[in-house]
Amino acid sequence: MNLENVAVVGASGYSGEELIRLLMRHPGVNLVSVTSRQHAGKVIEEVYPRFRGFKFSKVQFVDSNPEIIIASGAKLIFLALPHGLAAEFARPLLKAGLRVIDLSADFRIKDPEVYADFYGETHPAPELLSASVYGMPELYRDRIRGANLIASPGCYPTSIILPLVPLLKKQLLDPKSLVINSMSGVSGAGRNASIDFLYVECNENARAYGLPRHRHLSEIEQELSFAAGEKVRVSFAPHLVPLNRGILTTIHAMPVSGIGPDEITAALEEAYGDEGFVRLLGTQALPEIKNVVYTNFIDIGWKHDARTGRVILNSAEDNLVKGAAGQAIQSLNIMCGWPESWAL
Amino acid sequence: MNLENVAVVGASGYSGEELIRLLMRHPGVNLVSVTSRQHAGKVIEEVYPRFRGFKFSKVQFVDSNPEIIIASGAKLIFLALPHGLAAEFARPLLKAGLRVIDLSADFRIKDPEVYADFYGETHPAPELLSASVYGMPELYRDRIRGANLIASPGCYPTSIILPLVPLLKKQLLDPKSLVINSMSGVSGAGRNASIDFLYVECNENARAYGLPRHRHLSEIEQELSFAAGEKVRVSFAPHLVPLNRGILTTIHAMPVSGIGPDEITAALEEAYGDEGFVRLLGTQALPEIKNVVYTNFIDIGWKHDARTGRVILNSAEDNLVKGAAGQAIQSLNIMCGWPESWAL
Amino acid sequence: MNLENVAVVGASGYSGEELIRLLMRHPGVNLVSVTSRQHAGKVIEEVYPRFRGFKFSKVQFVDSNPEIIIASGAKLIFLALPHGLAAEFARPLLKAGLRVIDLSADFRIKDPEVYADFYGETHPAPELLSASVYGMPELYRDRIRGANLIASPGCYPTSIILPLVPLLKKQLLDPKSLVINSMSGVSGAGRNASIDFLYVECNENARAYGLPRHRHLSEIEQELSFAAGEKVRVSFAPHLVPLNRGILTTIHAMPVSGIGPDEITAALEEAYGDEGFVRLLGTQALPEIKNVVYTNFIDIGWKHDARTGRVILNSAEDNLVKGAAGQAIQSLNIMCGWPESWAL
Amino acid sequence: MNLENVAVVGASGYSGEELIRLLMRHPGVNLVSVTSRQHAGKVIEEVYPRFRGFKFSKVQFVDSNPEIIIASGAKLIFLALPHGLAAEFARPLLKAGLRVIDLSADFRIKDPEVYADFYGETHPAPELLSASVYGMPELYRDRIRGANLIASPGCYPTSIILPLVPLLKKQLLDPKSLVINSMSGVSGAGRNASIDFLYVECNENARAYGLPRHRHLSEIEQELSFAAGEKVRVSFAPHLVPLNRGILTTIHAMPVSGIGPDEITAALEEAYGDEGFVRLLGTQALPEIKNVVYTNFIDIGWKHDARTGRVILNSAEDNLVKGAAGQAIQSLNIMCGWPESWAL
Repeated sequence: MNLENVAVVGASGYSGEELIRLLMRHPGVNLVSVTSRQHAGKVIEEVYPRFRGFKFSKVQFVDSNPEIIIASGAKLIFLALPHGLAAEFARPLLKAGLRVIDLSADFRIKDPEVYADFYGETHPAPELLSASVYGMPELYRDRIRGANLIASPGCYPTSIILPLVPLLKKQLLDPKSLVINSMSGVSGAGRNASIDFLYVECNENARAYGLPRHRHLSEIEQELSFAAGEKVRVSFAPHLVPLNRGILTTIHAMPVSGIGPDEITAALEEAYGDEGFVRLLGTQALPEIKNVVYTNFIDIGWKHDARTGRVILNSAEDNLVKGAAGQAIQSLNIMCGWPESWAL
Repeated sequence: MNLENVAVVGASGYSGEELIRLLMRHPGVNLVSVTSRQHAGKVIEEVYPRFRGFKFSKVQFVDSNPEIIIASGAKLIFLALPHGLAAEFARPLLKAGLRVIDLSADFRIKDPEVYADFYGETHPAPELLSASVYGMPELYRDRIRGANLIASPGCYPTSIILPLVPLLKKQLLDPKSLVINSMSGVSGAGRNASIDFLYVECNENARAYGLPRHRHLSEIEQELSFAAGEKVRVSFAPHLVPLNRGILTTIHAMPVSGIGPDEITAALEEAYGDEGFVRLLGTQALPEIKNVVYTNFIDIGWKHDARTGRVILNSAEDNLVKGAAGQAIQSLNIMCGWPESWAL
Repeated sequence: MNLENVAVVGASGYSGEELIRLLMRHPGVNLVSVTSRQHAGKVIEEVYPRFRGFKFSKVQFVDSNPEIIIASGAKLIFLALPHGLAAEFARPLLKAGLRVIDLSADFRIKDPEVYADFYGETHPAPELLSASVYGMPELYRDRIRGANLIASPGCYPTSIILPLVPLLKKQLLDPKSLVINSMSGVSGAGRNASIDFLYVECNENARAYGLPRHRHLSEIEQELSFAAGEKVRVSFAPHLVPLNRGILTTIHAMPVSGIGPDEITAALEEAYGDEGFVRLLGTQALPEIKNVVYTNFIDIGWKHDARTGRVILNSAEDNLVKGAAGQAIQSLNIMCGWPESWAL
Repeated sequence: MNLENVAVVGASGYSGEELIRLLMRHPGVNLVSVTSRQHAGKVIEEVYPRFRGFKFSKVQFVDSNPEIIIASGAKLIFLALPHGLAAEFARPLLKAGLRVIDLSADFRIKDPEVYADFYGETHPAPELLSASVYGMPELYRDRIRGANLIASPGCYPTSIILPLVPLLKKQLLDPKSLVINSMSGVSGAGRNASIDFLYVECNENARAYGLPRHRHLSEIEQELSFAAGEKVRVSFAPHLVPLNRGILTTIHAMPVSGIGPDEITAALEEAYGDEGFVRLLGTQALPEIKNVVYTNFIDIGWKHDARTGRVILNSAEDNLVKGAAGQAIQSLNIMCGWPESWAL
């Protein structure tokens, strides 16, 4: 079989490391380049001793530089870079005819003004927005197939958008009623040397943060609005909890008049009954983070609260897999015509 | 100074152990009896080696039996028993002229039908309900002073009722809009030999549970309804997170028309400005569990979300202290005319 | 390809669950039966929701009973049962011509008197001991190939025997000098409903246990004695630390006169240079549990202490993989003539 | 009562924070100054929100500068500074007639050449070494009383020296046989923004480090040599485990001929029977970190291993209390003629 030459740009963070971990067991991929300013010159297993003995563990980090990446022969490029920087890399790589899967926020928001509003900067490459595809296979599989630029979704948005989109599309929920709480493991904060994320500061602690206007709201509301066919605004409270991996999301929503648990169940089953990475738990079981870590699954459960009339939706995912690297590889598999589960 | 003779009934669980820990440094208390069927005959430090060398560490566990407790000479009795059983003990102890601080749910719910509805059993001592006082000093200090039967509040209810009551009393919030998420450390599940709460099952995991109708709702809604002057029903999702101690609660609420963040702030400051164990963080800081563990404080912060119009209230407490043993001792201190902070 | 029919007996514990997890991705195995008294009648994914959507997740648990297992058509049987009970199953299964890989201690100790001494019971099947093979592929690969009864090694022994055997075989270390400390994650204690292993009891705690005579000493000293050609007795202190998975072992040993770090390095490289699951880190890096969890690797590093003359050897493994289920599957692969790394 | 004016210099780290926590409940202390370059200008509760509402929480951080400290009126100074820097502060403070309790390594090692050997720098103030007293009250209480310069012991040394000194003084153990393993919580690594100590890097991980020659060996061997009356060298392996607080130490030692468990027990009881902060568990119980965290206790247990002849000693302490701030305050109490347990 012909292998595809792939590069991972910015592989010093948790998402980049997770991409490497998953690509090492991908039957269709030849990892020809990994980049990191900090680690240039070292081989993968020096930086990540856990990878000793695995395929690609001797690949050498090179400097993060578009020309070097192009010269590596890679045809498909994962960008695991900070927002803003990602767009600077995407432009020359696309121009050189490469296909790009970007894990940053740079191409997720269709409206550059919304981007500027939430990210505090003018969009770095607005001309690329129209061609980019939001890399959520369950919603955009057909467009992913032929895309050259994938905006792979954020971790919180994945856990929120997937449960809600089928219900909003069918107008089952009052969009104004949406109240969302999420809790994330600490890898979501990235591998940055910061006092706030030291072991001692996070262990035996939990806290909300980013209230009331986390950046991911831009992406969440965009997709929910597309589904609802109207502008949706939601209340969203993210929390940091002492876990390495995992996001658990709890959504409270008021169904529109006349809608009960059966319609909710039917809509979710219709949407995801055939999806390989969405596991619907129904109304009798609740998602748990331990059931999804190190997998590309998102588990979704729901309960009807007869007292308040609200439905409570729960989802669990691994923030580094379905919420980042795994979903990005799912897009890769679609783009290359491979089975969607390869490496996942 | 005259010491008060105190007993702790059911001291094999986490709340009972925490009562002992705090009473060991109480300047007004003589701990004359601790009871536990399981540990009868052992002294405290055999059961809890952490207490070696502390005052009372040689007190011997006796069987949990009202007559034995009465014979011990104790005048103030903490009941750290399962609901149902607590009422069976309270009746003879009160009859014998002792004062009782009950940490179970048995006397928290004024309406025995609500109790039956949420706890699945006929109330075991409805004749005692009218004389019992809900032991939340910030709300009922004057009535606690002379009470003979205190129903010390639950852990989740404390974290929810304290932030909301001043706002509902002043009619600042739409009671129908209340959506509450809480996360609790595992000690909240009690010291029971259960697979579900083994280290390996809880570590690196998080999950919602008890949806949509956790028992504590009965107590939460009772107190919120008293404050609002109308029947209040709330959405409540409790979660288990990998911590030993602590509860973090996040409340989303819609202010009534015309009410903004300043009125919220003013109402909370008016209610709690002089309270010794409520720390108001205002709108600029968010509560964290690590700031309250091993203390009797509850920290409360709040944010106004201009986009949705909602206010987001956050609280943090130690579920075993302010959420259980500490708050019970706060009541003890009031009942005995001592400084409220003794041992806390 | 012809699949082998395999059964897992006693699949309600952590080792049994881990066997299922690994067998689900084994290309040569058809899992025809899983047994558990407790779970009989349920399918795998009901008991272990994490396995929803994986191969074999609909296999139904049956009662743990030799006749039922034989009737299932399984030809290779993993026993994940308590010691004592395992031998009772092994006897009829072997008689029926099946091949057995036992994860208990029952067939690890060649001398039934040593077994009786450490396990407090007469050996349940001494007639099977001579034919059993200690399932450590790096030491006994050739004998594993044709064996019908594998005694798969214990978790601590694996982490201790592998670093020491090559050094004792070459008489590089004074056997009397061996002092061994290990720390284990809590899954090593099994999935038993016990107060001692509740989250709150283990989290933020660490302790030694089983001093001075842990049962695994019988197995450790047997294999070290075989290697040294003399009776070896070691000091061994196991510790429980707040991890789900992993064992870290630190061994202090005095080389015999004239032996320095180079000879240590040479002996380990000669023994394990070609081994697929032993990663030698040399004298410059130290093993870490995070590098081996969820893998079948054991990492070994060593340091020479010029001040005391001792060598300090360090090893890290996943107690559930290389220390239990993974090593057992490594034996399976050898027994079936498959690549040793299948499923691992 | 007259309060003593006290300052904490370098209060941005974990030891400094712990000093503040303990001094807040000290009945004899007026905390007049806390210093930190990083936090100068902020009050304590801004930097440490957990201290809101406690005594001294409004004390303002000032720059770390000897003149400012002298001008504050403080008479007793805790130095919680890096080694090297501590000596630079001690010199002018002592000259100004203040008494200094230094938590760094600067004055622990009596021989400046040993200091240079282990710390890689010429000793910064060798002229002060002769007057400094090693601040371990159980060994040097009388000299602490009148000292002006206390070298408060390191965390690992405390856990190792206390169990061993009485046994070495009585020549019960072969000093050449000492093999020591310790595991420490992550606060031992300090509050430094370093990738290595991020939550995700430490959680679900354990590792040895600093092999074979950790700096604390200089201090450990000095005190053990004093006790044994001969030069002692030990094997020492420290490990990092996922805890916030706590050190657990396991020592393997060979008694000299004829010495058994009774002599070990007698020697420890003679040495520590009257000590307020040493809890002897004897041969039937083993120390656990959860029993000592947030206390100034060190728990010591021991076992005789009849098979090898060795004794295994175990100790547990809170590295930030008995291993740092608590022990320093114990010295303060002795220096001021107060009850040794004040604030502890």
